[in-house]
Amino acid sequence: MSSRRLLIIGGAAGPGLLGRFVALAGGPAARIVVIATASSAPAEASSSFVEAFTALGAGEVCALRLDTRCDANDDQPLLRRATGVFFTGGDQERIVTVLGGTVTDSLLQELPTSVIIAGTSAGAAAMSGTMIVEGDALGITRASVRTGPGLELLPGVLIDQHFAERGRVNRLLSAVALYPHELGLGIDEDTAILTDGDRFEVLGSGAVTVVDAGAATDIRVPSHGPITLAGARIHVLAAGHTFHLTGRRPVVDAPAVEREAA
Amino acid sequence: MSSRRLLIIGGAAGPGLLGRFVALAGGPAARIVVIATASSAPAEASSSFVEAFTALGAGEVCALRLDTRCDANDDQPLLRRATGVFFTGGDQERIVTVLGGTVTDSLLQELPTSVIIAGTSAGAAAMSGTMIVEGDALGITRASVRTGPGLELLPGVLIDQHFAERGRVNRLLSAVALYPHELGLGIDEDTAILTDGDRFEVLGSGAVTVVDAGAATDIRVPSHGPITLAGARIHVLAAGHTFHLTGRRPVVDAPAVEREAA
Repeated sequence: MSSRRLLIIGGAAGPGLLGRFVALAGGPAARIVVIATASSAPAEASSSFVEAFTALGAGEVCALRLDTRCDANDDQPLLRRATGVFFTGGDQERIVTVLGGTVTDSLLQELPTSVIIAGTSAGAAAMSGTMIVEGDALGITRASVRTGPGLELLPGVLIDQHFAERGRVNRLLSAVALYPHELGLGIDEDTAILTDGDRFEVLGSGAVTVVDAGAATDIRVPSHGPITLAGARIHVLAAGHTFHLTGRRPVVDAPAVEREAA
Repeated sequence: MSSRRLLIIGGAAGPGLLGRFVALAGGPAARIVVIATASSAPAEASSSFVEAFTALGAGEVCALRLDTRCDANDDQPLLRRATGVFFTGGDQERIVTVLGGTVTDSLLQELPTSVIIAGTSAGAAAMSGTMIVEGDALGITRASVRTGPGLELLPGVLIDQHFAERGRVNRLLSAVALYPHELGLGIDEDTAILTDGDRFEVLGSGAVTVVDAGAATDIRVPSHGPITLAGARIHVLAAGHTFHLTGRRPVVDAPAVEREAA
């Protein structure tokens, strides 16, 4: 697993998470590139993050407009010298449609591992190997989720976002039943995972839900009707918790059961 | 665990499930009592089920009006000779408020085990030992669910209903994090569990989601903010699947992984 650090945000990031990104990119020495390809209003989306990162003390912040595959096949001098890259929200399918297989796509894979790559909402979803494209059906069925290839910055996972806020556990369960090789990561708003090798740490005000169908004893995905998924594991992790991706287990760092007073 | 058979329906039951109840109650020999205490319009709620069970071939169907604790402390001759009892939907808290500790409550516990007791929606929720009263908060937090004592017809479980349709997995996860002793059962609409000793079978068109925090390695329930629940298990079971309640495991009856063609 790559040792690149990724900051993957479930949408609606507050200043705590955005400030952490700026710090990881180098603070006053940061050279940040904002990519709003996912957005239907990229100029507005870029400029709001450019302003936010500047206000949070980033040394240099630029919007990199990649609205077409032609843009994405440019030489990207800005990206080559960046210390931080930030993907905004919008429609994740636009990111892979515009960037897939381009110079920019290759460059993202080849950036020095010291460069922090972050994404929020659609920008988070696009980071996984298999990307959740859409799905709002009720129930846990084959039709509850549509997937496609992502940018593969973090292989082995399926990333869902706005997770608690949009009640998306059914589509994540559907996705891991279809693809039990992938770990399902559901990231709440104003919440993020920060990867470090094959671990991630949870940051922010919400939780990250990990759905693991690896240990499932019975998986049945009929053409129509409800999926059966017996013996899957689920972990709900608040800020400060760490999860080991290849080991598929949370790293428990404190007494086994602890309850604060109500 | 009692060998009474219970039919616990997640709401919006179609004729398949209602017909199964009539058959379990004895079909043409059935003597069915409908209890609409949960409903804010008990006369209408009762009569629609009386009509439905009659149309499905039940020998005898009566509404038993238990609108007050005074009603519930009557001698209940109808209930004493019933072969099937059906609780309608509405507000589960009304069921336990009106029936709790009354003659009817004791009688329900003491009915011959040949009597089938069924409930839909609120009537399903009230069957558990610890009952989910309400909770629609987003996220997985202490505030996401409110519980209270149920009728204890099926101890050891927390029953949630309209499960997929109302996106209630967060409140069920919150409940089992608070009470890991209890198995969380989330029952979709037009879906039911039929208990038989310490097992249940899934019936109907949706799925039953079992959330088991028993194996959790780390549970933290802060006063405010997200719960941590690491190492829980989740099972999504479609019709035909059986689950062993005391063993906390699905009974797998077919090849471990099976996928029908898409």
